[in-house]
Amino acid sequence: MNIDMIEAAAKRIDGKARRTPLLSSPFLDEIAGRRVLVKPECLQHTGSFKFRGAWSALSALDPDIRAKGVIAFSSGNHAQGVALAAREHGTTAVIVMPSDAPELKINNTKALGAEVILYDRATEDRDEIGARLAGERGLTLIKPFDEPLVVAGQGTTGLEIAQQAAELGVTQAEVLVPCGGGGLTSGIALALEAKAPGMKVHPVEPEGFDDVARSLKSGKIEQNPATTGSICDAIITPSPGVVPFPILQRLCGAGLVVPDDDCLRAMAEAFTRLKIVTEPGGASALAAALFHGETLQSDTVIVVASGGNVDAALFSQALAKYGK
Amino acid sequence: MNIDMIEAAAKRIDGKARRTPLLSSPFLDEIAGRRVLVKPECLQHTGSFKFRGAWSALSALDPDIRAKGVIAFSSGNHAQGVALAAREHGTTAVIVMPSDAPELKINNTKALGAEVILYDRATEDRDEIGARLAGERGLTLIKPFDEPLVVAGQGTTGLEIAQQAAELGVTQAEVLVPCGGGGLTSGIALALEAKAPGMKVHPVEPEGFDDVARSLKSGKIEQNPATTGSICDAIITPSPGVVPFPILQRLCGAGLVVPDDDCLRAMAEAFTRLKIVTEPGGASALAAALFHGETLQSDTVIVVASGGNVDAALFSQALAKYGK
Repeated sequence: MNIDMIEAAAKRIDGKARRTPLLSSPFLDEIAGRRVLVKPECLQHTGSFKFRGAWSALSALDPDIRAKGVIAFSSGNHAQGVALAAREHGTTAVIVMPSDAPELKINNTKALGAEVILYDRATEDRDEIGARLAGERGLTLIKPFDEPLVVAGQGTTGLEIAQQAAELGVTQAEVLVPCGGGGLTSGIALALEAKAPGMKVHPVEPEGFDDVARSLKSGKIEQNPATTGSICDAIITPSPGVVPFPILQRLCGAGLVVPDDDCLRAMAEAFTRLKIVTEPGGASALAAALFHGETLQSDTVIVVASGGNVDAALFSQALAKYGK
Repeated sequence: MNIDMIEAAAKRIDGKARRTPLLSSPFLDEIAGRRVLVKPECLQHTGSFKFRGAWSALSALDPDIRAKGVIAFSSGNHAQGVALAAREHGTTAVIVMPSDAPELKINNTKALGAEVILYDRATEDRDEIGARLAGERGLTLIKPFDEPLVVAGQGTTGLEIAQQAAELGVTQAEVLVPCGGGGLTSGIALALEAKAPGMKVHPVEPEGFDDVARSLKSGKIEQNPATTGSICDAIITPSPGVVPFPILQRLCGAGLVVPDDDCLRAMAEAFTRLKIVTEPGGASALAAALFHGETLQSDTVIVVASGGNVDAALFSQALAKYGK
């Protein structure tokens, strides 16, 4: 993995993925006690950054291989990204999703033309199911983070951050990224290493699912004790991926951990101050910046709002509790 | 008023106003039966396009005049735009607001450092109050739409639409714009006349407050019978402005009219499909595109989502009724 792969992905993605803006609000700066810049990947196609990695991977496949179809396993955001990228490449997608994924994500994935296969997150192994189906049907497995082409695609977010921050005169910053398997976090860290070396990336995770923070501390890949039990469904991956982890180790600062409830608060602030819709996991880095910034040191913090695929009921719950 | 004024405003605004992206969703295309591109000015500073016009006007003032302070009357979006533009220019702002404006808008305007003076929309004349205070205190009145510099600032939205649509290969389209006094609509129409002559602008208004649609039909400025009674508070101006109206007459197609309830539906669709927060008036053009497009003729419709300053309670109401 290196910056050349990310720049190659950026070329393939150009005109396909959306260049999301960099948002801000004086009200958020006031809460955080420092300047806050938000990269709203919830505005990306399919409502999360995952479309970048999916497009990167599918566009790099041999056309004959791609034509046989692809398969992915995902709680919903990678699912939608792969489904749309497959449809736009004129091929088919099979998506293996946990049965407790948000209904909106399941429905959208189907509506984007994918065949959806549900599994039980607590008792079944999605990797095994994915690998078996791929073998049986001749499908190419598009892994959600343990795939260099996917990491390269997510890294294009970092290229944009470096350029957009520089336009605002910002070259020194801590960059907070919601972190599941580490694909987005490692991709951004690699991009910034090359393009904005004054920036330091920190992964953000929900309380009880801080496998990446613990892995960075211990120096080896740690597991989460559970695979369910947080509203941050997008980022409660069992452990950091083997492709991202060495990159995270080499480039990232300590992981930050936020309670679920602060993600709801951050969702309400993003609603009121930025006019964007975020899902709990997607708002975790904003929650860290606004409510858990004690360990941060830079004058500017850049936050990735990684996704916005949230059911209306849960969003309304966040507004009822913390909205204005 | 001409394109040169808009291009001059664009230069003054460069790096100050946000260049909002152009969003889309295959799900919205499906509802509308045509391609829908959305310009989310809710993502603009202060949550609406109004910051453009406010910055345009304030930045063009003589510095000595500007230093004495400015005054504006507004239901809330122009208020916030002027308040922030004044603060960033290091001057003071007095804002005259109707007492029934959304609480969020009143609070934000105060938090942006402006002095807020409330009046009764049904019994008092805001123009008279504004003019009196301006005279008494030596403040410069920044009118919300009957001011060429403001129209020029709003017109920068049209310059961006022309360029961003061209990048997608779109040069022919109908462009739907939420319309109060007509500042945004006329500014966009002027910009597109010069930069995208294959596009036709249509103003959109709420049912019962269709003064612009009726004025376009009759050929003279018509009044709304009431000044309250729609959730689309941002765009229930009594009549089209004298500066915008001749431009609307010369360049716009027929006005579209949408019921309040369809604005709530459009807000829910924008939440689910675009991950943006819109207020009822701000979602009116999207409502027209999605649910009242019978009279439209182009393959592509471009919609301005003009603002997102909505209270959490009303937004939750839209989600409870139409959210997924």
